[in-house]
Amino acid sequence: MTASLPAPLNPPVRLLMGPGPSEIHPRVLRALAANTVGHLDPYYLGLMNDMQQMLRALFRTENPMTMAISATGSAGMESTVVNLIEPGDSMIVCVNGVFGERMVDVAGRAGANVTRVDRPWGEVFEPSHLKEALAKAKPKVVGIVMAETSTGAWQPLEEISQLVHDAGALLLVDAVTALGGVPVEVDKWKIDAIYSGSQKCLSCPPGLAPASFSPAALEVILNRKTKVQSWYLDVSMLAKYWGSERVYHHTAPINMTYGLYEAARIILEEGQEAAFGRHLRNHQALKAGLAAIGIRYASAEGHQLPMLNAVHIPAGIDDAKVRGGLLNCFGIEIGGGLGAFKGKVWRIGLMGHGSRQTNVLTFLGALEQLLAEQGYKFEQGASVAAANGVYLAK
Amino acid sequence: MTASLPAPLNPPVRLLMGPGPSEIHPRVLRALAANTVGHLDPYYLGLMNDMQQMLRALFRTENPMTMAISATGSAGMESTVVNLIEPGDSMIVCVNGVFGERMVDVAGRAGANVTRVDRPWGEVFEPSHLKEALAKAKPKVVGIVMAETSTGAWQPLEEISQLVHDAGALLLVDAVTALGGVPVEVDKWKIDAIYSGSQKCLSCPPGLAPASFSPAALEVILNRKTKVQSWYLDVSMLAKYWGSERVYHHTAPINMTYGLYEAARIILEEGQEAAFGRHLRNHQALKAGLAAIGIRYASAEGHQLPMLNAVHIPAGIDDAKVRGGLLNCFGIEIGGGLGAFKGKVWRIGLMGHGSRQTNVLTFLGALEQLLAEQGYKFEQGASVAAANGVYLAK
Repeated sequence: MTASLPAPLNPPVRLLMGPGPSEIHPRVLRALAANTVGHLDPYYLGLMNDMQQMLRALFRTENPMTMAISATGSAGMESTVVNLIEPGDSMIVCVNGVFGERMVDVAGRAGANVTRVDRPWGEVFEPSHLKEALAKAKPKVVGIVMAETSTGAWQPLEEISQLVHDAGALLLVDAVTALGGVPVEVDKWKIDAIYSGSQKCLSCPPGLAPASFSPAALEVILNRKTKVQSWYLDVSMLAKYWGSERVYHHTAPINMTYGLYEAARIILEEGQEAAFGRHLRNHQALKAGLAAIGIRYASAEGHQLPMLNAVHIPAGIDDAKVRGGLLNCFGIEIGGGLGAFKGKVWRIGLMGHGSRQTNVLTFLGALEQLLAEQGYKFEQGASVAAANGVYLAK
Repeated sequence: MTASLPAPLNPPVRLLMGPGPSEIHPRVLRALAANTVGHLDPYYLGLMNDMQQMLRALFRTENPMTMAISATGSAGMESTVVNLIEPGDSMIVCVNGVFGERMVDVAGRAGANVTRVDRPWGEVFEPSHLKEALAKAKPKVVGIVMAETSTGAWQPLEEISQLVHDAGALLLVDAVTALGGVPVEVDKWKIDAIYSGSQKCLSCPPGLAPASFSPAALEVILNRKTKVQSWYLDVSMLAKYWGSERVYHHTAPINMTYGLYEAARIILEEGQEAAFGRHLRNHQALKAGLAAIGIRYASAEGHQLPMLNAVHIPAGIDDAKVRGGLLNCFGIEIGGGLGAFKGKVWRIGLMGHGSRQTNVLTFLGALEQLLAEQGYKFEQGASVAAANGVYLAK
């Protein structure tokens, strides 16, 4: 068959304020278009070293086995699970949203004997919630999501890590939405396996999954009795490509790596602490603005992620109309609810380069217009004034 | 830890004449840098439809389940194998190079009972080579590589497909290097599962794996007794995202898809027959040029791929010196040998946008200079004259 030619590529300009992909820094877009070299070119091998060094800085780890998986964040999840789990191994998965659910599925496919521990959506896990399951399941691995993109809940990890290690298990963490927006302390918190995605607070298009494995995790992987079920994600082979031997494994995604390289460089130029502060401030401003017009968060107070603001859709307001209006009249993308939150929440991303005053104010102004159109009762201008109040405060 | 900032991104300009990545068309590089939209944006969903339509045209198939796997070609291999194979299933893998070897490994990890049929490197399979194994193994799936990137051998498929289907098996084909450079007739040849890579004759950077599944393959997948071991590559879920339901699965690699979209468009603009003719002509010119200075092909006569020219390194010539000279003095990358061919062959790619007269002549001129430096005995200028002879012939 022959196809008639489709239209030339001409994507509309969007303000990406959903759950990711987030706003891409123009320097990252330019980096993607840099001239391609081979995956075994001396220049590229040097770039891989620098890339690893920057990813270690972002993850705050000395782990030698720190690299970018050549696929999106979900493959990052799969890479950590399938390398650590052998058929029949016991694994606890903490579930309080879509991505915990996904991890249960991934772990089951890897042959894990999965014990799931559930918490209501929007809430987080306290160490006490895990004690019984740890004693009963005697897990090899405990998996938990640090920043639940479906609910906006920010999971503290330090105490849970202690508990998990006391029980002799390895800690596996989903940091897809967390990395770059809030502190992720791999070494200090003794995280054994962690993955992220390029398209959230790193402000790079989707396509790569930064990941890191502790020496303890690597030892488990190198002493497996069975082969890792995935050839593509087998860390024992990836270690030889990313390690000093540079043994060819698969053809690396060169230009995506250029993009992630530039993205990491931008974060380190700004400084991570400064970036975290910026994420927090813009979150506070957005939250103040939303509160001023009666919109509440779906995640528990004190555990709200700065980069992913999941809020209840006000009663009587048409979800699709607001999101459609944002997209079509303003070019603004926000996310709808997933799973149990479908039709009930909006997910507003302030991630990486997208975490900016201008975006907060633009969004609030546009939202006010669309709410007013639907007859929502509130004082017009209140959200912008409240957000500016946060910015004006010292 | 904090890292000092690495150097700004500044890749050297290379002429990519290795086994891939190949030369990227400038339009594709520009497409990569187009402004990112969300993976559920109406524009992106429309783009996915057009992308699928173009991939169907390239694969010459009506298969609804035709899409791009969100990872590199090796994940494409894994996607076809893990979806079709359940633990204990019988699978025949044809091995005459590195990528057949890889498929054996991947199939074993998926739990297949693998029967390997071997042929010497550089040669291809005749139907007669498979008859005994088919009768004995009664396979569910037969896997074969159409264009063995490690040897340059071009595997005919039509008769083997007939034989495989007569035996009641499904045919799984590696077309990583084939697609876009030689005809790949998925429907006519009744291929059940096929995958390729973006970085060969499609002239797009590595990162995506076009793939297609026949209705028969899809039926097998949808009637599995066990879940596909890989969540990320599970075609039953991918079918819902790429199908009309558009159920969110993973975050698609937006900008890489832009690149592949533009790359496919460029091929369809030229016309596939014209592209195949161009690949053949440049191959003939290169071959004539190399023959004129005594360099022979490593793959069997009559089965030499036009886009991947694997040739014997002449006796007494230092492999590393020539490849290093090409890279450092001319900016030309060619590939060394892999596996059994390590140190014995060069692999010269003339793929996609890289299959051009200028590249053939540049390469021959540079090679002559480097061979002369090592005291190789030949008539200087002979290779270029011979290549031009092919171009000048009607």
